[in-house]
Amino acid sequence: MDGSFDMVVLGAGSGGYACALRAAQLGSRVALVEKDLVGGTCLHRGCIPTKAYLHAAEVADAARDGARFGVHATLDRVDLGEVRSYADGVVSRLYKGLTGLVEQRGITVVSGEGRLVGGDPVAVTVGDDRLTAPAIVLATGSTSRTLPGLEIDGVRVLTSEHALRLDRLPASVIVLGGGVIGVEFASAWRSFGVEVTVVEALPRLVPNEEPEASAALQRAFRKRKINTVTGNGFAGVRTADDGVTVTLADGSELTAEILLVAVGRGPVSSGLGYEEAGIALDRGFVFTDERLATSVPSVYAVGDLVPGLQLAHRGFAQGIFLAEDLAHRAGRLDRPPVPVVDRDIPRVTYSHPEIASVGLGEEAARAAYGEIETLTYDLGGNGKSQILKTQGFVKLVRRADGPVVGIHIVGARAGELIGEAQLITNWDAYPSDVASLIHAHPTQNEALGEAHLALAGKPLHVHG
Amino acid sequence: MDGSFDMVVLGAGSGGYACALRAAQLGSRVALVEKDLVGGTCLHRGCIPTKAYLHAAEVADAARDGARFGVHATLDRVDLGEVRSYADGVVSRLYKGLTGLVEQRGITVVSGEGRLVGGDPVAVTVGDDRLTAPAIVLATGSTSRTLPGLEIDGVRVLTSEHALRLDRLPASVIVLGGGVIGVEFASAWRSFGVEVTVVEALPRLVPNEEPEASAALQRAFRKRKINTVTGNGFAGVRTADDGVTVTLADGSELTAEILLVAVGRGPVSSGLGYEEAGIALDRGFVFTDERLATSVPSVYAVGDLVPGLQLAHRGFAQGIFLAEDLAHRAGRLDRPPVPVVDRDIPRVTYSHPEIASVGLGEEAARAAYGEIETLTYDLGGNGKSQILKTQGFVKLVRRADGPVVGIHIVGARAGELIGEAQLITNWDAYPSDVASLIHAHPTQNEALGEAHLALAGKPLHVHG
Repeated sequence: MDGSFDMVVLGAGSGGYACALRAAQLGSRVALVEKDLVGGTCLHRGCIPTKAYLHAAEVADAARDGARFGVHATLDRVDLGEVRSYADGVVSRLYKGLTGLVEQRGITVVSGEGRLVGGDPVAVTVGDDRLTAPAIVLATGSTSRTLPGLEIDGVRVLTSEHALRLDRLPASVIVLGGGVIGVEFASAWRSFGVEVTVVEALPRLVPNEEPEASAALQRAFRKRKINTVTGNGFAGVRTADDGVTVTLADGSELTAEILLVAVGRGPVSSGLGYEEAGIALDRGFVFTDERLATSVPSVYAVGDLVPGLQLAHRGFAQGIFLAEDLAHRAGRLDRPPVPVVDRDIPRVTYSHPEIASVGLGEEAARAAYGEIETLTYDLGGNGKSQILKTQGFVKLVRRADGPVVGIHIVGARAGELIGEAQLITNWDAYPSDVASLIHAHPTQNEALGEAHLALAGKPLHVHG
Repeated sequence: MDGSFDMVVLGAGSGGYACALRAAQLGSRVALVEKDLVGGTCLHRGCIPTKAYLHAAEVADAARDGARFGVHATLDRVDLGEVRSYADGVVSRLYKGLTGLVEQRGITVVSGEGRLVGGDPVAVTVGDDRLTAPAIVLATGSTSRTLPGLEIDGVRVLTSEHALRLDRLPASVIVLGGGVIGVEFASAWRSFGVEVTVVEALPRLVPNEEPEASAALQRAFRKRKINTVTGNGFAGVRTADDGVTVTLADGSELTAEILLVAVGRGPVSSGLGYEEAGIALDRGFVFTDERLATSVPSVYAVGDLVPGLQLAHRGFAQGIFLAEDLAHRAGRLDRPPVPVVDRDIPRVTYSHPEIASVGLGEEAARAAYGEIETLTYDLGGNGKSQILKTQGFVKLVRRADGPVVGIHIVGARAGELIGEAQLITNWDAYPSDVASLIHAHPTQNEALGEAHLALAGKPLHVHG
């Protein structure tokens, strides 16, 4: 097939398919090139299946610890094959919905690996096919990274993709990397009864979150008997038939059945003709301006390829933005969309407890604005959190006498509170704007209300 | 003790204590009169313990149905005494926090039943004590109501207060009343393995919610084998040593071990001198203007006594409003607070599934504005809801080409989504205001984002 389109998108993950769907809705003829399955990492090997595992973990915890609530249950066994089937079931329902949507919008899905061909206009080849369009969108995403000297064998040394395909639970695991992916797997495995050690080279887990959030997570992990080693990096690994031995920078050794490598995700951009076509890259990431244009005219990029937060919903937002921006420039949309800014994007770590944040941390806010105020509301005062027996806090960061610029939450189910939080920071709300509104009692979102009441100088259920 | 104060509050429930705390913070000397415990119905016999029971119910469901997630567990038994102890533990921690706060703010707590004494100024007696103040706040709340000919014996025929103090689970229960309290108890009991029949005289359960919400709840209850009888009222009851027989309006009979009467809550206002002092009442409720002034100068009312939504957080908000309004009139606060409007208050029914709403329903919005638009987003498209295996929807109601004026949600954990929803309706947001923001993936609050994207004409994961 040779074909000319209005837009060719390379990669049908979150960023790519969102861009294709919105562009098609706005009247573009779109080709969506994907070598694997529409939906990409997030749907098939990332966000969705991991969150299904984490919900199964929550169910296991509920059964194991039910007596705290007067509910006596015996956790007989976690059948990892069945957990996988449940996760697969969720994925396949969402996949069916997504492919139906792609079809309904008349998007041409091209199976195979798309490669850029330089020249004017820039074209795309997929095997023997050649696709051209005045707009080409790079959305080939990211993949699990490893460290020098650390070979992934898929048996003893795994990436998160391998970990999701295990058919039985290991007795023990070392998780290399205490970022989001690492602590999520650590949390789920521990709930399933696995002995877990998390190793993080930086001084604290989830180092992109507030220090208090890291401390709260480490406390919770300690209670859950998850071992954490921080400030100590990877030095080497030996694998044997029955397990792995990891040597750390300080010379100490850890052994376990398997090693999960969760040291970050790198861009998928090599061997795809990007560099040859003249696209400016930095260590494989694609440089763009704030309107997602690359260094080559008519070529754009969205999602994990673009340096910054690696989050599916950032991909969605960038994809939609780009489709609208191109439609606007073509005169098919009245107003230009607003570029996506990373600091406005909510972030959730779905460990137990969860961590959710949006906007600036205390240190970044101080650097940006000089004078700031912070307020931390302890979930000990929140009825619903007490009912859930969860500990944590809501921390607000505001410009002195100004709007709230950052919200940071730790606690069970905190991820659901960040929806409200991102409205607050994105709408530049003042504490008094939120304090004047009424939160339902008893909910956890009430903690957001109480925190804003306190920061507005009119605390309700707050001491001090 | 005879004493003169700046404010005397009758009743230390949600409305009363919130008013006292805020008034004290604003410099008033406050007497808080309570015959029972500070915290009132909500803390001791209402919201808090019932939500603890409902969380224990969630834990029981998780253990019983864990195999759907690959987690095999046996639900051995629900020990109602232990559920009660767990709930009592939550209550007592919150109670300790609250009494500490009351003490810290220098509020004088007077134990006993306060009665109004007419005259000028209006005074309050508590036993032999006489308290006077330029502002008297009636906050004596509400109590479980019954029907004519339906005697509550506390053994076979119970109110919700009795139900919370049971020391063993009944095998079967009839719940009279399909409003919030009735369906919450029905839901929790069913999770604990009890045979439950809910009887509602109106044509549907939770009749104050959208018809689709009622239908979704009834469907979910049917699946959970909770019997529901709607459009059929109570005619009579016979009690015996081993159970109750309830006759309905159509002549049919139902039998069970106990009958829970959940037909609403009436005001606590008789025998307290209100009428004698000249306070205008309507069937026991206290009439106020929007600034919560009663018909008698210097006497105010807050909370369930004031006709309207009977919700703890309405009480909090009214209490804070009144304290601030009085402080403003005394020149101690620069700006007058904004009166509390019931339609701006979020409402949550904590059954499984939960129902949460804020603002106007479709019918009320049409009556108010003529032209409206609605959009219903099915949680089938929401990844996190699929992971939780919950069904439901987000329904938006907007004025034609105007702001969102009502949000209605059904689904597990819907109560946490209403925090964001109330910001949207209270800040008169347009669908496009919300659609331009980024919700975290995969969360349930993302469903709010998707619904607003669709209503703004740019659906992402929505067919059609």
